[in-house]
Amino acid sequence: MPTITPPFEQFAGKHVLITGGLGFIGANLARRLVALEANVLLLDSLIPEYGGNLFNVVDIRDQVRVNIADMRDEHGLRYLVQGQDYIFNLAGQVSHIDSMQNPYTDLEINARSQLSLLEACRHGNPDVSIIFASTRQFYGRAQYLPVDERHPIQPVDVNGINKLAGEWYHIVYHHAHGLKTVALRLTNTYGPRMRIKDARQTFIGWWLRLLVEGKPLTIYGDGLQVRDFNHVDDVVDAMLMAALSHAANGQIYNLGSDDPINLLNLAQLMIEICGTGRYEMLPFPEERKRIDIGDFYGDYRKIRSKLGWRPKVSLRAGLAQTIAYYQEHLPHYL
Amino acid sequence: MPTITPPFEQFAGKHVLITGGLGFIGANLARRLVALEANVLLLDSLIPEYGGNLFNVVDIRDQVRVNIADMRDEHGLRYLVQGQDYIFNLAGQVSHIDSMQNPYTDLEINARSQLSLLEACRHGNPDVSIIFASTRQFYGRAQYLPVDERHPIQPVDVNGINKLAGEWYHIVYHHAHGLKTVALRLTNTYGPRMRIKDARQTFIGWWLRLLVEGKPLTIYGDGLQVRDFNHVDDVVDAMLMAALSHAANGQIYNLGSDDPINLLNLAQLMIEICGTGRYEMLPFPEERKRIDIGDFYGDYRKIRSKLGWRPKVSLRAGLAQTIAYYQEHLPHYL
Repeated sequence: MPTITPPFEQFAGKHVLITGGLGFIGANLARRLVALEANVLLLDSLIPEYGGNLFNVVDIRDQVRVNIADMRDEHGLRYLVQGQDYIFNLAGQVSHIDSMQNPYTDLEINARSQLSLLEACRHGNPDVSIIFASTRQFYGRAQYLPVDERHPIQPVDVNGINKLAGEWYHIVYHHAHGLKTVALRLTNTYGPRMRIKDARQTFIGWWLRLLVEGKPLTIYGDGLQVRDFNHVDDVVDAMLMAALSHAANGQIYNLGSDDPINLLNLAQLMIEICGTGRYEMLPFPEERKRIDIGDFYGDYRKIRSKLGWRPKVSLRAGLAQTIAYYQEHLPHYL
Repeated sequence: MPTITPPFEQFAGKHVLITGGLGFIGANLARRLVALEANVLLLDSLIPEYGGNLFNVVDIRDQVRVNIADMRDEHGLRYLVQGQDYIFNLAGQVSHIDSMQNPYTDLEINARSQLSLLEACRHGNPDVSIIFASTRQFYGRAQYLPVDERHPIQPVDVNGINKLAGEWYHIVYHHAHGLKTVALRLTNTYGPRMRIKDARQTFIGWWLRLLVEGKPLTIYGDGLQVRDFNHVDDVVDAMLMAALSHAANGQIYNLGSDDPINLLNLAQLMIEICGTGRYEMLPFPEERKRIDIGDFYGDYRKIRSKLGWRPKVSLRAGLAQTIAYYQEHLPHYL
């Protein structure tokens, strides 16, 4: 089977909606699509605690349309999906801890709003292709490594349950209603424009901030937990490939990387790249310990064999570029 | 490990809440608990299309308290869970087809309301034991038979996704918040007091009505799809055992039976027991065909080995008792 590879000229002139479009991955995707001459509409709620940030699109501001609305606004969605060729569905509440403290909000955003989007498409734009940004997190603790798509599902928090429901609505709407949907289960994604304000969403964002501010990186426990990381450019590649592939409809694909690393080594690598910095080891806070999943890295052979995707950006090169980005733009992310 | 067996005197004097308490399984459970001298509170919305029916408790009406409220009323729930020793959480929207037509209602009842119940208990009654009536339906099409708890999860409709979310909230609230929760994945349950009004919920209820009314049973397709059936008395046993077992906390158990049967043979058996009747074969309606799962029967060895449960009522005896019930009480179920 021929695979679809960059530069993805197929997007020229196409209408594309990105939910969560002012967030980390959405904004990077938007830049790529703008370069490909797509007509890009960004939907974002700009809820302060989430990832949306107008600075993320400051230099493409005239080349995209921005619509500020919440995914929970089902009437707005009904209008906004009309006429789109592709919807990259990236909006979500991503904090594990928030989901345990306020499970209803998490449910509304990660589950109910996904239904709203799908219902809006089913009734108002049944031919659109929908690419859903899912997560590897509901695999829970790995029963084997690397974790492939057949690994048992075992969410460890409310966020995992709701994200999973959101993903499955997409798949069921393909099988039952014929919508063109695909889900990518993202692992830890990093790169320019990620949220680094606090540790609520990702620890790597928080580390980037601490590093650039000259503060010690905080490692919980012994730091030997292994994780995998994808640079956002690779994730954008995967999304564009999934959007263009007919074979992807109704499918779920893991992303992943070739070089899993433990957190201690990651901290050391970041400090080495930065040329300065230090880390400190702290005991695991109880709240985090209860939902920690131990070692985790994904098996991405399905998307590699079916769509030809593989990550290209090395962790070292990606981190160097990302650190440089925040050294230049830090104030816009605090 | 000693297993807990009937007659379950441990429930005497205990406070028990049954959500969906006027429904099929809830009302049968209530009768058992009344006989065991528990203080029984039944919560039911009496939504006409669902399974609640006051006739189900007509002869124990003075021995239970009935509170009409919807599970979506989170304020009501907050009060009603207080002081309970056990909550049998049976309320749900069970129609596959309704969930595809109105996914929001299904989400509210099967997912959000479960969160409300768990939040109410977490904050207002953290020592209560909660027994959740889950379903085997989100296994989807069986990849192997019989289907055990490790079988991959693959919901085929919105109802399956939401029921799964509801189940997993229970398990996550055990692990994260220490609530005593257990989930039983029920297969096809039949017996007196089931809803037989139409085919929206279960085909066996619909068949019971057709049989008792002297109309032909309708079989879609060739009738060779195999299913398993549990009599409601056996399901009540499983729930009481799960409630009393400390080992059950945080666990998920399949129910199942020893004598799976295909639908054609089931129709023939029902007609034979009734002494009269006929069936007709019809092509599969498109809407049902899309979500049909083929052969299915569950592996219940986990609950058998851990809690000592096994079904005791034979299909023949259970059907005979059930048919007799509807021959006597038909008008109350139309």
